[in-house]
Amino acid sequence: MKADYHSMKAPHLIIIGGGFAGLELIKQLRNKFIKVTVLDKNNFFNFQPLMYQVASGGLGPDAIAYPLRKIIAPMPNIAFRMAEVLRIETETQTVETNIGNFAYDYLCIATGAQTNFFGNAALEKYSMQLKSIPDALDLRSDILQEFEKALNESQGSQIERALNFVVVGGGPTGVETAGALAEMKKNVLPADYKEIDAQKMQVHLIEAAPRVLAAMSEISSAKAKQFLEKLGVHVQVNTAVQQYNPETGDLSLSNGQVIKTDTIIWSAGVKGKTIAGIPDTSVTKGNRYQVNEYNQIEGINNVFAIGDIAYMTTDKAYPNGHPMVATVAQQQGVLLGKNLLKLINNQPMKPFTYLNLGSMATVGRHKAVFEIFGVKMQGYIAWLGWMFLHLMLLVGFRNRIVVLLNWVWNYISYQRAIRIITRPFIPKQ
Amino acid sequence: MKADYHSMKAPHLIIIGGGFAGLELIKQLRNKFIKVTVLDKNNFFNFQPLMYQVASGGLGPDAIAYPLRKIIAPMPNIAFRMAEVLRIETETQTVETNIGNFAYDYLCIATGAQTNFFGNAALEKYSMQLKSIPDALDLRSDILQEFEKALNESQGSQIERALNFVVVGGGPTGVETAGALAEMKKNVLPADYKEIDAQKMQVHLIEAAPRVLAAMSEISSAKAKQFLEKLGVHVQVNTAVQQYNPETGDLSLSNGQVIKTDTIIWSAGVKGKTIAGIPDTSVTKGNRYQVNEYNQIEGINNVFAIGDIAYMTTDKAYPNGHPMVATVAQQQGVLLGKNLLKLINNQPMKPFTYLNLGSMATVGRHKAVFEIFGVKMQGYIAWLGWMFLHLMLLVGFRNRIVVLLNWVWNYISYQRAIRIITRPFIPKQ
Repeated sequence: MKADYHSMKAPHLIIIGGGFAGLELIKQLRNKFIKVTVLDKNNFFNFQPLMYQVASGGLGPDAIAYPLRKIIAPMPNIAFRMAEVLRIETETQTVETNIGNFAYDYLCIATGAQTNFFGNAALEKYSMQLKSIPDALDLRSDILQEFEKALNESQGSQIERALNFVVVGGGPTGVETAGALAEMKKNVLPADYKEIDAQKMQVHLIEAAPRVLAAMSEISSAKAKQFLEKLGVHVQVNTAVQQYNPETGDLSLSNGQVIKTDTIIWSAGVKGKTIAGIPDTSVTKGNRYQVNEYNQIEGINNVFAIGDIAYMTTDKAYPNGHPMVATVAQQQGVLLGKNLLKLINNQPMKPFTYLNLGSMATVGRHKAVFEIFGVKMQGYIAWLGWMFLHLMLLVGFRNRIVVLLNWVWNYISYQRAIRIITRPFIPKQ
Repeated sequence: MKADYHSMKAPHLIIIGGGFAGLELIKQLRNKFIKVTVLDKNNFFNFQPLMYQVASGGLGPDAIAYPLRKIIAPMPNIAFRMAEVLRIETETQTVETNIGNFAYDYLCIATGAQTNFFGNAALEKYSMQLKSIPDALDLRSDILQEFEKALNESQGSQIERALNFVVVGGGPTGVETAGALAEMKKNVLPADYKEIDAQKMQVHLIEAAPRVLAAMSEISSAKAKQFLEKLGVHVQVNTAVQQYNPETGDLSLSNGQVIKTDTIIWSAGVKGKTIAGIPDTSVTKGNRYQVNEYNQIEGINNVFAIGDIAYMTTDKAYPNGHPMVATVAQQQGVLLGKNLLKLINNQPMKPFTYLNLGSMATVGRHKAVFEIFGVKMQGYIAWLGWMFLHLMLLVGFRNRIVVLLNWVWNYISYQRAIRIITRPFIPKQ
């Protein structure tokens, strides 16, 4: 049997989303007796864990983006369509998109997550986020434009406002972004902006929980906080962000403190990216779809959800759902691929259990925390391990080479080479 | 004497524009007794000759952009401000910008050129151009989006319209862009879009003059045309573009032919980027400033213009002005640097004469034409020479490495690695 998308009379699976989950699912189905259409509004997969390095000018977007068409090119039973999904009709088994309707036999929703501002409209409007490549380029432009702005201000309070950077949320993204900003203060600012007193730049990391990197062990949390503080980041735990006044630049915290800033980077939470047409009753905590142990959406047996968008409570170790991280998404993608083939062949499916491989985060040069397969490391070796694993996890040999080259360059030069502003300045007020 | 921008009591030169001309001028003035402020609306220099490779997905923007601040970092008497110049007041010797006013003793306008649509509003509105990094990224996104669109169309005429690409203007940019598109047809389309019949993609190059690469010798022109046609490009000379109808996609040519297309890439001409405040009487052919042999704007002795924006008729070999190319700009920058130091020291200035080093253009893999220092080559060796010289001309060691790496990658893989759409689709209608 030669699998071919156009001629094969096989069940048709539509996958919405070419992220970590969708990608692993596709790989499992390569050359199998199933016809697969991948829909994504972008034509590339992007490697989110390194997004903060695009924002801080250490990498270009092409280093972490990989064309989806290139991934599926050697997979004759799989097609890609660049499309924005508008609605799902489960009755007629149709996905409505901006480029037309697609009929499915099986549907897999792998749309991932979006930033959660928990209803705070002012923060949503004025915060930067880090969920897409345009987000990252916007943030990079904004950071550099704040430096430029600081040069043109004569008033102390305005300079302070331009040079105060507040990262909200102490998960891996928040910790890594705050660390990258602190390194820009140390290396980029004194080199490029000699006219600015680099000491005036302040990086704040605000976390509502009692510690940063709450998903890791206490020792890693403590060490990460110590690394951040060594780099000059003001870390505040047990502290929430309350209100932002764009006129005055006042950001008020739950402890009564007010920080004057133009730049709030929001990494304090995510929520599922749901699609119209799936009944509201299926949407549960974190705006995620309630799924059973096979990632089936309750009540609609031929519709699956995997990755961040899926909320599963059957996995014994995770009664309140899995963490919204890449490894869960990947493992669910792999298992669903196998289960779908079983389903088609009328074999029983296997329930999902998450194998937690661990977690890691880099704060800066020679400073990382690492907990993989129970091995706990901090500092230099952890930093090497973090780099090695990220290089391995990247998709495509070219991207690995490009990232490695940039890292070597940044390491030797102490700089972030790509400090170019490619987007127009969007005033905050 | 230690030169320092802030403390030195030296004449103050403002340079508007950090392109090829401005950059060479800066280099001449490093550590000299002159205080220099560079104003540019971008914070980077961009290497325009390789812009078409960004558009065709062979390079990322960071490969051809170089931070201006990094260039001036080792130059203590030179400062940079990211600013949009609004107006020049020659009476009060002031440059008005969006970040405030700057007073000057000497002013150098090195603003370069912009695309010239010769008054055709429809073509200006619906054409793509290649003068800035956002232009290049827009064009890249557009090309790839046309491929995606072709997949979703069922009508033959709509597919034809999506897959017809028309390059207007047969100068180096037009020739190189048409060649790059033809290589995408040959390599990217069959690999990534197996569902599209690649033969349906057609690349047209329309030139109003009797031959392409009119600035080069007849043999180079003929060879370039031959290379293009070998790659399947439809080259038409002695043909002008007349009207475009965005509703029907009809592009009408002076020979009566009508091409149905969604994508017109305009590289048929440039004009100077003038600034308000310089008297209209100084603006002459091609919207350029009439300058004397020292690049002084007639009648305003402390205001100079160099590069594309300058129109000089005193150079014997160029009674109708110099070609608007990088080498003229660079040579004028170098000479003005020397002349300014002479002027300050009350020594006589040296008149400008252009040393034409030659010209070159690449059509595709192993296909280029090359005329440097009187050496004329075509084909494989010319192609190697083109690559070598472009690598040498790039600013910064990092960019050279990145470009080289990408070229090697593209050469081996026959692909354009960076086929990612990073900008939203802007409908043409």
